Amino acid sequence: MGDKPQTAGLVLIGNELLTGKIRDANGPYLIAGLRRHGIDLAEVHIVSDDIEAIAEAVNLVRGRCDHCFTSGGIGPTHDDVTMEGVAAAFGVELEERGDLVEVVQAVFGTGESAEAWRKMAIVPTGTRLEFIGRHWPVYVVGNVYVLPGIPEIFRAQFDFVISSIEASPVESNVAYMKVGEGELTRPLTELAESYAGRVDFGSYPVLGHPDYSVKVTLDSRDPEALSEATQRLVDSFPAEALFELAERVEAGEA
Amino acid sequence: MGDKPQTAGLVLIGNELLTGKIRDANGPYLIAGLRRHGIDLAEVHIVSDDIEAIAEAVNLVRGRCDHCFTSGGIGPTHDDVTMEGVAAAFGVELEERGDLVEVVQAVFGTGESAEAWRKMAIVPTGTRLEFIGRHWPVYVVGNVYVLPGIPEIFRAQFDFVISSIEASPVESNVAYMKVGEGELTRPLTELAESYAGRVDFGSYPVLGHPDYSVKVTLDSRDPEALSEATQRLVDSFPAEALFELAERVEAGEA
Repeated sequence: MGDKPQTAGLVLIGNELLTGKIRDANGPYLIAGLRRHGIDLAEVHIVSDDIEAIAEAVNLVRGRCDHCFTSGGIGPTHDDVTMEGVAAAFGVELEERGDLVEVVQAVFGTGESAEAWRKMAIVPTGTRLEFIGRHWPVYVVGNVYVLPGIPEIFRAQFDFVISSIEASPVESNVAYMKVGEGELTRPLTELAESYAGRVDFGSYPVLGHPDYSVKVTLDSRDPEALSEATQRLVDSFPAEALFELAERVEAGEA
Repeated sequence: MGDKPQTAGLVLIGNELLTGKIRDANGPYLIAGLRRHGIDLAEVHIVSDDIEAIAEAVNLVRGRCDHCFTSGGIGPTHDDVTMEGVAAAFGVELEERGDLVEVVQAVFGTGESAEAWRKMAIVPTGTRLEFIGRHWPVYVVGNVYVLPGIPEIFRAQFDFVISSIEASPVESNVAYMKVGEGELTRPLTELAESYAGRVDFGSYPVLGHPDYSVKVTLDSRDPEALSEATQRLVDSFPAEALFELAERVEAGEA
């Protein structure tokens, strides 16, 4: 298994996500990206544009996970309060940073309407800036990456951040079973116990599919244990109980 | 404005959501349903199949919101531990209930493979059962509705539950603005302050749209305040700054 896998948590910020005005696209992007890269996502929180709610969620995640990502709430308008929330989480003040004022002025100029954008130069004390070429920098506070909600920018910054994190990808097999969860429960429980910590088993009933009724997934960072556990699962049932076995399924497909 | 609006929180449970094996469909359904019905969604948590993580999220939500919904983890297999998590949240034991054993036997019979389904008769002490006609009952513990992850069943149970909650819907207007967030910030901040608690303003930049650059939303349960605030927003800019004004937009559309 090697080293302990890296873990991450996500805090999605914005009233618009909770009212359904905007359907979040950053969560699915991050989930697929972490999976592909081999970082385990432990938890996701969706909170409103509320300083205390943001601070609480950030503190839960940064205390438990190696990496905390936030999405949203860093623009210039009144409902953008993520920086206040992150500062509150760390118990530090906000400060206007000269190096960020330069970035803001380079992008938005110095006219009257550009004045509002200066808010984006105000960050928690101790914020590190990670520059992606000539793009806007990524704000990093401790182990918290403060990313914007706009999907195009979120994606560029997220891809940049995870490319610098070393991790080891998970491999997956999927068994499409014709038997119901009732028949699966006992053998699956025994296998899950016997491979605890080495192979993760998941069981997902699918209603109304003509060919199978449960999708059983096996995840592991140990290829040998994965093969062996898969064989043992298949051997637990008569051949006609298995509709299909998909091996070494791509991250995001299983 | 009438009474204080009802609030709800959601706990989505399952490793499959965090690994991207299953893309959650219940969150979006609940978000749209609560919005249409007039219940404010305050927070969403996605947690793994872990008793402590479930208990923590349920306790956060049930303590702060009028209603807590959970989705997933109530089937018969080893990874279904939601009942344990909810019991831990309330500090109560699990018990096998005679009335639920009858439901299980009516649906799955009494054969050997049906035995596994008896797990679904084991619930936290004090669980109330709300029967939807002849369907499987909804499990309710305190203000926590414990719903299944399978979307078809989640939807039926969720619709049933919210139909019994009295609430007052929110009305929305949307202004599609041709100016950037920089120009919007000052008037929007002033309006948000002057209508605090009566009208919620949101500002959402849209990259690369040919006709507008920011979507400004106004939400209220007070139709008069909504009209007045919308007029004041429009009057804050020259006519050519407004691309389009959409009034009384349906829940889920704004």
